[in-house]
Amino acid sequence: LSERNLKAFRETFLELHPTDQVEVFQSLELAGQKQVLLFLSPEEFSDIFQGLDLHEQSEVFNQLGFQYAVAMFNYMPADDVADFLLEMEVENADDILQSMDQEEANKVIELMAYAPRTAGAIMTKEFIHLSVQSTANEVIDELRQTAVDAETIYYLYVIDENHHLAGVVSLRDLIIAQPDQTVDEIMSTQVVSVFENADQEEVAHLIKEYDFLAVPVVTPDKKLVGIITVDDVIDVLEEEAAEDFDEFTASKGATDVNLTAFTAAKKRAPWIILLMFFGLITANIIGQFEETLEQIVLLAAFMPLIMGTAGNTGTQSLAVAVRGLATGSIEKTGVWKIVKRELGTGTMLGVVCMIVLMGIISIFYNGNWLLAFIVGVSLFFALSMAAVIGAMVPLVINKLKIDPAVASGPFITTLNDILSLLIYFSIATTLLDQLV
Amino acid sequence: LSERNLKAFRETFLELHPTDQVEVFQSLELAGQKQVLLFLSPEEFSDIFQGLDLHEQSEVFNQLGFQYAVAMFNYMPADDVADFLLEMEVENADDILQSMDQEEANKVIELMAYAPRTAGAIMTKEFIHLSVQSTANEVIDELRQTAVDAETIYYLYVIDENHHLAGVVSLRDLIIAQPDQTVDEIMSTQVVSVFENADQEEVAHLIKEYDFLAVPVVTPDKKLVGIITVDDVIDVLEEEAAEDFDEFTASKGATDVNLTAFTAAKKRAPWIILLMFFGLITANIIGQFEETLEQIVLLAAFMPLIMGTAGNTGTQSLAVAVRGLATGSIEKTGVWKIVKRELGTGTMLGVVCMIVLMGIISIFYNGNWLLAFIVGVSLFFALSMAAVIGAMVPLVINKLKIDPAVASGPFITTLNDILSLLIYFSIATTLLDQLV
Repeated sequence: LSERNLKAFRETFLELHPTDQVEVFQSLELAGQKQVLLFLSPEEFSDIFQGLDLHEQSEVFNQLGFQYAVAMFNYMPADDVADFLLEMEVENADDILQSMDQEEANKVIELMAYAPRTAGAIMTKEFIHLSVQSTANEVIDELRQTAVDAETIYYLYVIDENHHLAGVVSLRDLIIAQPDQTVDEIMSTQVVSVFENADQEEVAHLIKEYDFLAVPVVTPDKKLVGIITVDDVIDVLEEEAAEDFDEFTASKGATDVNLTAFTAAKKRAPWIILLMFFGLITANIIGQFEETLEQIVLLAAFMPLIMGTAGNTGTQSLAVAVRGLATGSIEKTGVWKIVKRELGTGTMLGVVCMIVLMGIISIFYNGNWLLAFIVGVSLFFALSMAAVIGAMVPLVINKLKIDPAVASGPFITTLNDILSLLIYFSIATTLLDQLV
Repeated sequence: LSERNLKAFRETFLELHPTDQVEVFQSLELAGQKQVLLFLSPEEFSDIFQGLDLHEQSEVFNQLGFQYAVAMFNYMPADDVADFLLEMEVENADDILQSMDQEEANKVIELMAYAPRTAGAIMTKEFIHLSVQSTANEVIDELRQTAVDAETIYYLYVIDENHHLAGVVSLRDLIIAQPDQTVDEIMSTQVVSVFENADQEEVAHLIKEYDFLAVPVVTPDKKLVGIITVDDVIDVLEEEAAEDFDEFTASKGATDVNLTAFTAAKKRAPWIILLMFFGLITANIIGQFEETLEQIVLLAAFMPLIMGTAGNTGTQSLAVAVRGLATGSIEKTGVWKIVKRELGTGTMLGVVCMIVLMGIISIFYNGNWLLAFIVGVSLFFALSMAAVIGAMVPLVINKLKIDPAVASGPFITTLNDILSLLIYFSIATTLLDQLV
């Protein structure tokens, strides 16, 4: 990128789709990025800035002059500006907001006030609203002037004189309508809307269910304050899926690959140490059975097999419950039916594993029938129990409205470890007592 | 729902959004559903049928007369008909296709021929195409006639005389254009399209990246054959997230809550038994250290703690790798940087856990320093190793393009079990040999 090529660069670069511009920009070294900044106006660069993630945005922001940054923010959708400013030091944000265009700044301030992960926090203020008296033709004329700034022009929201949401007209309706029909006549008054404090996941599921392109956000008294578009909803769905996964693996907030090793360790250590204390309970339980272990040391060899198989069965049942809760299919089927089914599945898995394992042990451990019997029977009970616990714990926790992170994979597995070892050593001790 | 209420029912019911109609229909018992069928025409019912899942569709289908079903299929989008027929017995499907409107049937047959999970299999044939010579005004007039059947009228695809994709016009462009401008002048020729055999996940990520509402599907020689809309893509993203989760918990294809206990057990048993065989390897390894165990039986008590803590650390690292691969952030950061960071994180977690555990054991186990030392040091090495394995295995597997299911949680955990026990008993045996 030499300065002589300015014109050629601008011509090729600005022809690209913004998403491709972002990709090119990201692929450049710092020096190249600075050059691009010099070549582009704040308005042109605002498209690229929006496409960067927060981490990259703050790096680039440090390269921007204050005036350039302020001008750029004026051209960005208010929700993107709000997201960025919320991540920054507040004093700096205030400076920027005071220098911005007053109307734009007010939108940003309004959005910044919403609690994170609510409809208000993810909505955009760049939407088109109509009044009921306009005709189809007038609306289309007006769209020609204002369409550039709006996030979507495919749904047009109709408000009455008190700014209350009165209806919705799709661009489709508008095209099909006669030019002199009024908005009043063509709008649909059955508008599905969400409240500003609605959970973002709820909004996402609504849009997904109804195949909407956008949904309006209203205050409790039905004043229209913003809209949420389908592309924002896709991001929310991905974010929520990622979160479920992080919770499931007890690594919430620590799966970001950009963290340093130290930060990652600091975030992950509490979970690991907490779970290690459960491990101490297990150690204590086994310690109680020291005598039994001394009699048959080989019992220790099968501890991992029993714990592991119970753990895997429990994890599968957990997956059934977590998926069923996420998709809502458990609400339909009923909690107890699932628990009963899991008990059935666990019992069957238990029978199969018991038979396979008894056979293997009696062959490979010189016909040690006692060991085969203890391990096999323990496995049967451990699997039946693990399947029920794996399914029931998340369902109960969900009913009690406790944070489901408590029911994540490692916790269920640790619980199953403790219980399956108790089963194993109880059976072993009882049998040995009988025999001796 | 009594017959006298027919008119009232139709008036209220047909006012509802199709998604709400589906919900009402689903909430009815069989008798009620039959009544609704009698009250609605095949065209009216087609909206409801589309909204049911395949399981429900086949139940309802058995209630429909053949003629009613055929008429209904004529009104349904061809992709939904194809999805349903693919789940049925083939003979029956042929009968239906032969009785359907020929043009509709051909679309369905074409869609049924695509491999599942490709762009071709999820695309819709209900799209609007324009020729380059039309003017904006002509297009708008035409839309007034044909808009009803199309899945989206917000993107209009332009084809040349050979049916090749030549450009795209958004309804937005069309509104802003002068009425007498030709499509040629207003269309964008830089169209992002996908091939018919592209993976559905690839298509979903493209639409997500570019915030498109739809993307055109073309043959290798650029003939336009269909479009994929954003609402279909949301379903694909949800499906893929669910699959990743199922693979992660080694319960692929078995998380459906509608399966019977027996079917679920049959699907889950292979994983459980396979993993149990790994457990036998562990048993065998521990058996080799029988002598060491006889010397300090309490070593057995800490096996679950070491395995569990290593397993949890490995699962966290696995989560980092799986998430990083899913979001593409690892491609940017580089594989080795992640593995190195995980080694760092694992080492730090190891140091912390070692110190905590050595303290606890020496206090609660009567100053058994030897035990404390063996357990603590083993934990340090086990965690460092588990973090690296958890991160590296999925990354290597991804490079080798093997099915990532092999790297699912239970497999990594089992691998970590085996290795951490090897570390534990090797350290214990070496130390005991030194002391004796």
